[in-house]
Amino acid sequence: MRMGEGVEWGLHCCVTLGWLDDAAPVSIRRLAARFDLPQEYLKKRLQPLARAGILTSAPGVRGGWSLARPPEKITVMEVVTALEGPLEAFRCTEIRQRGAGGRDAGREFDGPCGISALMRRAELAWRRELAGTTIADLMERAPEGAARTRRNYARLND
Amino acid sequence: MRMGEGVEWGLHCCVTLGWLDDAAPVSIRRLAARFDLPQEYLKKRLQPLARAGILTSAPGVRGGWSLARPPEKITVMEVVTALEGPLEAFRCTEIRQRGAGGRDAGREFDGPCGISALMRRAELAWRRELAGTTIADLMERAPEGAARTRRNYARLND
Repeated sequence: MRMGEGVEWGLHCCVTLGWLDDAAPVSIRRLAARFDLPQEYLKKRLQPLARAGILTSAPGVRGGWSLARPPEKITVMEVVTALEGPLEAFRCTEIRQRGAGGRDAGREFDGPCGISALMRRAELAWRRELAGTTIADLMERAPEGAARTRRNYARLND
Repeated sequence: MRMGEGVEWGLHCCVTLGWLDDAAPVSIRRLAARFDLPQEYLKKRLQPLARAGILTSAPGVRGGWSLARPPEKITVMEVVTALEGPLEAFRCTEIRQRGAGGRDAGREFDGPCGISALMRRAELAWRRELAGTTIADLMERAPEGAARTRRNYARLND
């Protein structure tokens, strides 16, 4: 069970775009150069974030990417969901009801399966952490990042 | 980010083998028939649990599968790790240090990346739920399952 690399890329891009708010929109070329990532591939990874209303991308030579909302209004959970999909990691197919062993269960299967319930509880604990943290929180937790990012950005040419 | 179907299969088989302890070992044919699962495919899904010391499989006509340890000594986390691998769902490749934006960071990157730290925290919350629940707990949470499983098992022929 692994997340795609897009999650790391997307979250770092959101934080970077938060720091570069004054300079926005930021061209995909500069954004890719900041992390030494392949430009076209990065663009594909960011498009779901635009569709989810987290980023906006403006076309044209002066165009580029920016946060669609203030960073304190974007949770990490939203970014991860936009990139990885809304589905839960565990999919219950109710195999308890299938086959010979599921016969004559009476009303036993009216309640949720204990395995499914546990998996959901675990996933909720995971989601709670990510939903409780915003892009603004991540920006604050790297206090030297803003100055470094702006300084290095100013040196980049389109 | 999805878990394989093997997690649902493996956990239900562990619980079932816990309930059928008196009748163990249980042939793969009966285990597959209990859930109406493809026999060979189920066997492949259970093999990592044998390698992890969670199940044992005895060869021969009277052979089959059983729990390798008492169900209160097997956590759900162990089963999931055996089936899905020990790796964390989020892989940090330290892209913050790469490219133009990572230059002149001084000692800033000595500390962990905030994004990576958050992801680890979320994953630990998830792991804590699964590590805190055993196969014996799952058996107890389906109080009618034991009798139903034993009753239906007795009707199956090898």
